[in-house]
Amino acid sequence: MLVVMHRQATAADIERVVEVIRAQGLTPHVLPGTTRTAIGMTGNTAAIDPELFEGLPGVVEAIRVTRPFKLASREMKPDDTVIPLPQGTIGGGSFTVIAGPCSVENEAMLLRTAEFLRQQGVRFLRAGAYKPRTSPYAFQGLGRQGLRILAQARQRFGLGIVTELMDTEEAEAVAEVADIIQIGARNMQNFALLRRVGRCRKPVLLKRGLCATLEEWLMAAEYILAEGNYQVILCERGVRTFSDHSRNTLDLSVIPPAKAWSHLPILVDPSHGTGKRAYVPPMALAALAAGADGLLIEVHPEPDKALSDGPQSLDFPAFEQLWHRLARLAEVLHRTL
Amino acid sequence: MLVVMHRQATAADIERVVEVIRAQGLTPHVLPGTTRTAIGMTGNTAAIDPELFEGLPGVVEAIRVTRPFKLASREMKPDDTVIPLPQGTIGGGSFTVIAGPCSVENEAMLLRTAEFLRQQGVRFLRAGAYKPRTSPYAFQGLGRQGLRILAQARQRFGLGIVTELMDTEEAEAVAEVADIIQIGARNMQNFALLRRVGRCRKPVLLKRGLCATLEEWLMAAEYILAEGNYQVILCERGVRTFSDHSRNTLDLSVIPPAKAWSHLPILVDPSHGTGKRAYVPPMALAALAAGADGLLIEVHPEPDKALSDGPQSLDFPAFEQLWHRLARLAEVLHRTL
Amino acid sequence: MLVVMHRQATAADIERVVEVIRAQGLTPHVLPGTTRTAIGMTGNTAAIDPELFEGLPGVVEAIRVTRPFKLASREMKPDDTVIPLPQGTIGGGSFTVIAGPCSVENEAMLLRTAEFLRQQGVRFLRAGAYKPRTSPYAFQGLGRQGLRILAQARQRFGLGIVTELMDTEEAEAVAEVADIIQIGARNMQNFALLRRVGRCRKPVLLKRGLCATLEEWLMAAEYILAEGNYQVILCERGVRTFSDHSRNTLDLSVIPPAKAWSHLPILVDPSHGTGKRAYVPPMALAALAAGADGLLIEVHPEPDKALSDGPQSLDFPAFEQLWHRLARLAEVLHRTL
Amino acid sequence: MLVVMHRQATAADIERVVEVIRAQGLTPHVLPGTTRTAIGMTGNTAAIDPELFEGLPGVVEAIRVTRPFKLASREMKPDDTVIPLPQGTIGGGSFTVIAGPCSVENEAMLLRTAEFLRQQGVRFLRAGAYKPRTSPYAFQGLGRQGLRILAQARQRFGLGIVTELMDTEEAEAVAEVADIIQIGARNMQNFALLRRVGRCRKPVLLKRGLCATLEEWLMAAEYILAEGNYQVILCERGVRTFSDHSRNTLDLSVIPPAKAWSHLPILVDPSHGTGKRAYVPPMALAALAAGADGLLIEVHPEPDKALSDGPQSLDFPAFEQLWHRLARLAEVLHRTL
Repeated sequence: MLVVMHRQATAADIERVVEVIRAQGLTPHVLPGTTRTAIGMTGNTAAIDPELFEGLPGVVEAIRVTRPFKLASREMKPDDTVIPLPQGTIGGGSFTVIAGPCSVENEAMLLRTAEFLRQQGVRFLRAGAYKPRTSPYAFQGLGRQGLRILAQARQRFGLGIVTELMDTEEAEAVAEVADIIQIGARNMQNFALLRRVGRCRKPVLLKRGLCATLEEWLMAAEYILAEGNYQVILCERGVRTFSDHSRNTLDLSVIPPAKAWSHLPILVDPSHGTGKRAYVPPMALAALAAGADGLLIEVHPEPDKALSDGPQSLDFPAFEQLWHRLARLAEVLHRTL
Repeated sequence: MLVVMHRQATAADIERVVEVIRAQGLTPHVLPGTTRTAIGMTGNTAAIDPELFEGLPGVVEAIRVTRPFKLASREMKPDDTVIPLPQGTIGGGSFTVIAGPCSVENEAMLLRTAEFLRQQGVRFLRAGAYKPRTSPYAFQGLGRQGLRILAQARQRFGLGIVTELMDTEEAEAVAEVADIIQIGARNMQNFALLRRVGRCRKPVLLKRGLCATLEEWLMAAEYILAEGNYQVILCERGVRTFSDHSRNTLDLSVIPPAKAWSHLPILVDPSHGTGKRAYVPPMALAALAAGADGLLIEVHPEPDKALSDGPQSLDFPAFEQLWHRLARLAEVLHRTL
Repeated sequence: MLVVMHRQATAADIERVVEVIRAQGLTPHVLPGTTRTAIGMTGNTAAIDPELFEGLPGVVEAIRVTRPFKLASREMKPDDTVIPLPQGTIGGGSFTVIAGPCSVENEAMLLRTAEFLRQQGVRFLRAGAYKPRTSPYAFQGLGRQGLRILAQARQRFGLGIVTELMDTEEAEAVAEVADIIQIGARNMQNFALLRRVGRCRKPVLLKRGLCATLEEWLMAAEYILAEGNYQVILCERGVRTFSDHSRNTLDLSVIPPAKAWSHLPILVDPSHGTGKRAYVPPMALAALAAGADGLLIEVHPEPDKALSDGPQSLDFPAFEQLWHRLARLAEVLHRTL
Repeated sequence: MLVVMHRQATAADIERVVEVIRAQGLTPHVLPGTTRTAIGMTGNTAAIDPELFEGLPGVVEAIRVTRPFKLASREMKPDDTVIPLPQGTIGGGSFTVIAGPCSVENEAMLLRTAEFLRQQGVRFLRAGAYKPRTSPYAFQGLGRQGLRILAQARQRFGLGIVTELMDTEEAEAVAEVADIIQIGARNMQNFALLRRVGRCRKPVLLKRGLCATLEEWLMAAEYILAEGNYQVILCERGVRTFSDHSRNTLDLSVIPPAKAWSHLPILVDPSHGTGKRAYVPPMALAALAAGADGLLIEVHPEPDKALSDGPQSLDFPAFEQLWHRLARLAEVLHRTL
């Protein structure tokens, strides 16, 4: 249920609706829009009577939300979610490129990459301090030391940091360094972790699970939103199908329905999506043309020496070339790189 | 095995190589390139000795082709295949839009659509006279009468005709009217049909099967090429996965590997790929940005009254708008619409 | 619509209903059951008024069939379809093992295999004279010569012959030799071929397409049934998924819903389903326990020398051992091997 | 690398090998077999020289393990893993049925179900105190209170308890009550959770992820084994494919390769696998025939009133009937129910 308020509704009007919602044992979510405020509610198992609200002062109407996801749906919030960060804004017409190596391998390579990206005009750096690896015997990331190196890059180059959280126990340590906390594909339905980042006050980049439907993905976002963290960014990174020409099947076709069903911004990760360097630029350009809000791209100073994901990482010249092609395309599509 | 000839190799040099190939019981394929001729061969089950050719006059080298598809591979033919037709050229930097209704429903609607498309600048009309339908009780197309209506549209508006062949028995009737013969996704491994169109002298548009890997798709193209018809156009139209936000999963990520493995042009059908009108324009733009050679798009004067595929057909104003957006994007990408 | 007749309905009563159906421009299908006759009809695009039939003599009721497939549905025909053949009965409590090599390689190996199978008690021999191969350069089968060898095996050992038809042009030649005509997975939606075997008077074994849903599979069966050939046998042979532990993913879980939705018998092909000899026996036993009506199993005197599908073929001792295990299991499940 | 010891190797011989392994910076795993001991090692990133071990007293040979999973592989441990518990043994010829409701709904229903199952002869009870739910607004389980009810059932009826752990923070609470700790499909690659249960001294039931390959599944098991907990039980519960006749696609075909690649016992969950009550018994019987070591089955006193998974739960009479059919089948397959 969504209670839509008059433009002239007062703070007291809003408070009264909030109290009625609480009196039903439900959780109110005050959602300010560009012209008017709406108040969502979650927690009900049965339908709620709209008459509870429709007579109250300042209330225009009470609308049933038909999708199983509520706070994530366009029904509840028709305006696009825009996430303003000190380093740049995500959503709302901007096209955000988040770039960097798969993992923080050491201080020298990370700072070198950060410096290069900053010079290009990139505003967000991605790199993992904690790495989810299929094998328990593979390199698992530098952990806390990796976080410290990321904090350095943030300070020296003014880049926003995007890094993955894998374990509830590390939530505070990661949230302290990260400007955006990444939840990986394999944890998309790790509900304990979703609830935990829902209580962080940092935006969350939620990767799509390897075989998640769009509805399940938005339900996972709902877990975060329902805890009061409304700054969720979706990220398509390839799904698993029978197809074997690429490491995963990058599903650009999810972008239009994601935009239709939800107000959340959506990024695309063509590096994991294709698993092959040569395929990254065409898919990056296609993501922009398809309406995505940005990209997550793996860049490494020496991809052939990378500890993980080398074959899908761009080197510096390849990234520079892609950046210029994106800029030209963004212009004709009226998007801001 | 591919025998690469000197630039100055004579017709007699080429003929000698052809004779050696025939003497081995194999089929020679003379493949003229922009600067030099190469001669492929097919039919061998075991490896062939390169020394058979390397001493012959005019021969530069004999190269082993490692892919299971031979004539379809870039190894055998490094230059892009370009298909010149009276109405326009497919491949080689042009971006070809083939548009029209799912099926020829009647003369009036088809001619009306043809006229509209011609006015926009479209040069190829698609419409089915024979329709593959899941149900034996559904509308199966107008058959021969549909072909006659298509011939009229061709004559009156100068449009190239793209229409599907489903049955070897109708091959001559379809080949007479069609400028490009379409093989549908469900027939991608109907080997009798592939061989039959391999013997037609018309270009073939080969749709990807619902769960075909890229290799299987190129092997299906190889069936056509091996019969001596080198004018094959690939068409991605969505594959089948667990994903349910669209009718099929449109796999734009197949474009870069298809271009890397093969010289054949590749089109994209976002109408079947998404199954939903609103998702067609963003996917069409993305296909162009990803490097496709063109589009197959369903357009209908009154989509809500269409006998088949109405929900995924654009009406005239929507097509016009998409056409203009494609034109702007093509320009910045140095492609000719 | 299905018109259910009284037990005592006369031939004249039935004929009257048939005439009313024809008068509506529809096709009647008289379906005799164990205790009463029902009359189905196909060809309608809109709903039919039950009152057309409910007043007629001998009519109990007129029932709407809700599934998109009609003749294939249990609604239309609640009793299991049982197919009596001179060599043995398919369906109805029997468990039919159809065995033999992938392809007819030569007379000696085929007759040797036929003799061995006959000695074991097997009553149906499978082998392809026409082979659908991914590559145009691979062995495509012996064709007409293969059919002649199969006819010999039929005559000498009294085995029922199961062999694949790939091309409408070969339909008569195949129907002459085959006791059961096989339609391969890649042709499951080759509608011209389905219609053609619908006009043959031989039972048809219809393999499930590589990514066919159960509904699409039954709709393909419907194409055959709608032409008047009611002797269709389904065959699960593995579908295509992300899973890579086997060549295909053998979907035994389709058996219970196939039995619930349809009256047609269903066999399982664990050889193609798994692609690996060692996995065939456990899957064969599981198919029997899951309720399948039989098996299609590849057997070859010398699997390591097979021209196709060697790795998934059982040799004679392995088949003999499986046969005995099936016999023990069939007994406790009250099935007749 | 696996160091195989002589039958007569002494404790000192074994200790010496363990020391050499530790000296290389690796982790030794002493694996006692029926006739001889073997010593595995993990932690190496490069190949290890077998000569380090082959001269030592009591060593027969040092074998390279080629699979990416080590401790989970048959190469490392050829004998089946058998897990003895007070309530019954898992693996090694026994067929273990674990039954119970989806979730602990309240004390009365749980104890009623436990009593019924005990009377039938069932030895393990499954029920969730913590429920992974797609929606944050759905019933999430009774938590600690649910664990207390499970402890009661354990004490009163002597049933072994199988219950899910979703969050590292609850590990101790769950391990205290559970005889077998379940890791759900959505957490199969929650590596923090896998490591945590690897440090518990309770057997772990590891469900296959919705789109996990067999290799990834065994790599997930490897995370647990590598922490020193060798009591891992695999559980197939259906994977996600295009197929829509059931809730998931129950992949019984994974059983033979799982048995070939690994020594771990494997159970099947036909309730989640099919999502429909009527399909559970045939799939349960098929799992037994295919070689599984047991079943996980949802049973509920009143399935239509279940808070979760009602449509796939058997009621008491249906379970009783299935139990008897399993018993008959197990006998002829020489398995102990």
